[in-house]
Amino acid sequence: MNSRWIYRTPGISDELFVRGNVPMTKEEVRVITLAKARMAPHHIVWDIGAGTGSLSIEAALQAAGGFVYAVERSPVGVYLIQSNRKAFGLDNLKVIEGAAPEALDGLPDPDRVFVGGSGGHLAGILESIHQRLLPGGRIVVNAVTLETAAQTLELLQQFYGAVDAVQISVARLVKAGASHLLKGMNPVTVLSAEKRL
Amino acid sequence: MNSRWIYRTPGISDELFVRGNVPMTKEEVRVITLAKARMAPHHIVWDIGAGTGSLSIEAALQAAGGFVYAVERSPVGVYLIQSNRKAFGLDNLKVIEGAAPEALDGLPDPDRVFVGGSGGHLAGILESIHQRLLPGGRIVVNAVTLETAAQTLELLQQFYGAVDAVQISVARLVKAGASHLLKGMNPVTVLSAEKRL
Amino acid sequence: MNSRWIYRTPGISDELFVRGNVPMTKEEVRVITLAKARMAPHHIVWDIGAGTGSLSIEAALQAAGGFVYAVERSPVGVYLIQSNRKAFGLDNLKVIEGAAPEALDGLPDPDRVFVGGSGGHLAGILESIHQRLLPGGRIVVNAVTLETAAQTLELLQQFYGAVDAVQISVARLVKAGASHLLKGMNPVTVLSAEKRL
Amino acid sequence: MNSRWIYRTPGISDELFVRGNVPMTKEEVRVITLAKARMAPHHIVWDIGAGTGSLSIEAALQAAGGFVYAVERSPVGVYLIQSNRKAFGLDNLKVIEGAAPEALDGLPDPDRVFVGGSGGHLAGILESIHQRLLPGGRIVVNAVTLETAAQTLELLQQFYGAVDAVQISVARLVKAGASHLLKGMNPVTVLSAEKRL
Repeated sequence: MNSRWIYRTPGISDELFVRGNVPMTKEEVRVITLAKARMAPHHIVWDIGAGTGSLSIEAALQAAGGFVYAVERSPVGVYLIQSNRKAFGLDNLKVIEGAAPEALDGLPDPDRVFVGGSGGHLAGILESIHQRLLPGGRIVVNAVTLETAAQTLELLQQFYGAVDAVQISVARLVKAGASHLLKGMNPVTVLSAEKRL
Repeated sequence: MNSRWIYRTPGISDELFVRGNVPMTKEEVRVITLAKARMAPHHIVWDIGAGTGSLSIEAALQAAGGFVYAVERSPVGVYLIQSNRKAFGLDNLKVIEGAAPEALDGLPDPDRVFVGGSGGHLAGILESIHQRLLPGGRIVVNAVTLETAAQTLELLQQFYGAVDAVQISVARLVKAGASHLLKGMNPVTVLSAEKRL
Repeated sequence: MNSRWIYRTPGISDELFVRGNVPMTKEEVRVITLAKARMAPHHIVWDIGAGTGSLSIEAALQAAGGFVYAVERSPVGVYLIQSNRKAFGLDNLKVIEGAAPEALDGLPDPDRVFVGGSGGHLAGILESIHQRLLPGGRIVVNAVTLETAAQTLELLQQFYGAVDAVQISVARLVKAGASHLLKGMNPVTVLSAEKRL
Repeated sequence: MNSRWIYRTPGISDELFVRGNVPMTKEEVRVITLAKARMAPHHIVWDIGAGTGSLSIEAALQAAGGFVYAVERSPVGVYLIQSNRKAFGLDNLKVIEGAAPEALDGLPDPDRVFVGGSGGHLAGILESIHQRLLPGGRIVVNAVTLETAAQTLELLQQFYGAVDAVQISVARLVKAGASHLLKGMNPVTVLSAEKRL
């Protein structure tokens, strides 16, 4: 039971995170991303391109007996993740400042991997993940560009065979006077795969 | 830990449910629905218009120390929910055959309520829920028609003041030869509100 | 043949309009709106809540032998429509400054009516339109809020019986470095109906 | 003025076409596709992978003083296009039975090209089009798979520099009892580019 998020289900409100100007995975996409990971309490998790750390925080809450490594190369991102880690009082989350795949070298092999950003090294990162992912492990990639979605789909097929992929479009109903405007968010493609046991 | 769903996060694959021809809340919408409910392990849950019971099953897994009442008036639905309850081996889920709001009379007051179908009695059902919902309790309504979305928005505002509402559109990437077709699913509006403590 | 838009098909680029901060019907939604109107060259058109006039301009190009009345109550909107009328050199488009339904009194009965904004008088405006619309005439309403979509659907059904309604969600692929981000636009519900001959 | 479609604007109802089981570009996507082509009355048009010919028919109506070549390799498609040509009484539309790019050899150079299907020869087809497209000409590609969308985006950028690309998601409001269900259609990515003068 966490003092800032007292619920068992994922889906922390966006406003509960320290954010800055770094793009953040929005609540609805975040819960689908976590669902596609199919997490268990003991999981070792990598969150690559962790950004604000919103996904890392949710993962650390779900893997209360495991550990989350948030890999982020931008100093602003590193600062935000640390701020959020403190705000949520989590001691099973560590920020790794650096760029993947190099930054992954010293980490324990993961049960679950999230990829939110690849800084132009998608193929190398996905290959490293495939080598290191534990048997039965799962990878979930969030793609916000068409190119990343297509490249990820191709690479995950090569590495894992079957891929689950969904595009999520969320419109939030925002109060505008007495009515509610449908405000379109950016579509995100969530791609996931599982390494054979 | 459940034998059929060994994960902590929600998001059971649609194929794991006994389905028939009854419309089912799809995996991605289901996890957002659960997230908006913000569940805790001890929660008493009503799932009104439970359909196949896919949401009830997920709720029962999240509320392992609580209890879920799946209210469904169609005999086919009742049969499917019972089949799914057995398949997942859950003993904290009970099917209530009958129509809301009448069928709610004998149930304990809920911490969380899901409304997936109202059989034309939406106003009466939402009023009953508002009366019975425990302080700090939450209601989540899934609307698949424009009329239900608009009516629910209006009623939840009247009863609870602030309403969170999002429209979710999912496209699944379905293999078609060597490529993946984007297959559009029906948009669902997920509306939620919280009763003041 | 117009000097600023030399094509026969609708779909003027958003950048070709003088815009200011007034919300504008985006190109893709605009062409669907015009399509649902099913225009002919001689049509008398009302564009109510014309905003920037982008739809009025397109309508005036399609109804080259007809006439378009752009009704707009905001002085900024009126100025923008006039600026756009000049930029496109159209002489079959007139701006009517004022609020519907009152502002409609002096206008000739229309073959086609667009409603982009109603300033809170939707029911009165739709009733006036129904009275004045010529037999075989068509009305197309663009709704950006859930409430307007639902109310319009109900009223058009009452007045006309059959209603065609579609929700359009557009994501534009915007260059971001070497890739293209999917940028979600706000969904718009386009509702249309035809008056019996 | 056509006897079956008496309007100037595109947007023929899906039901007005002879269809069979061949996938058809739906009305709303069709009008955006035509808009992106920016047609003029004298245009020579190629419609490659014409399917049912619904786009060819609309193009032939817009290019009343031009000519449309509908290229289709499937005999069922050829039959449907011919049926639709007769139904709409068009004499400026010819069906070319065969596969692109070979089937394009004998055709006059085009002002506008639509690509609805490529039968696995996308790169070769787009290269042929680029060679043959008249200066100032435009190409519009409709992609229903992620792979085709991404490959088209890359190729159009190589050939033409700037590319306009939008993903269109349409939900139709379908009567279900007294309410209207939002029925999601498959998202389509519409990519277009212009050859320099």
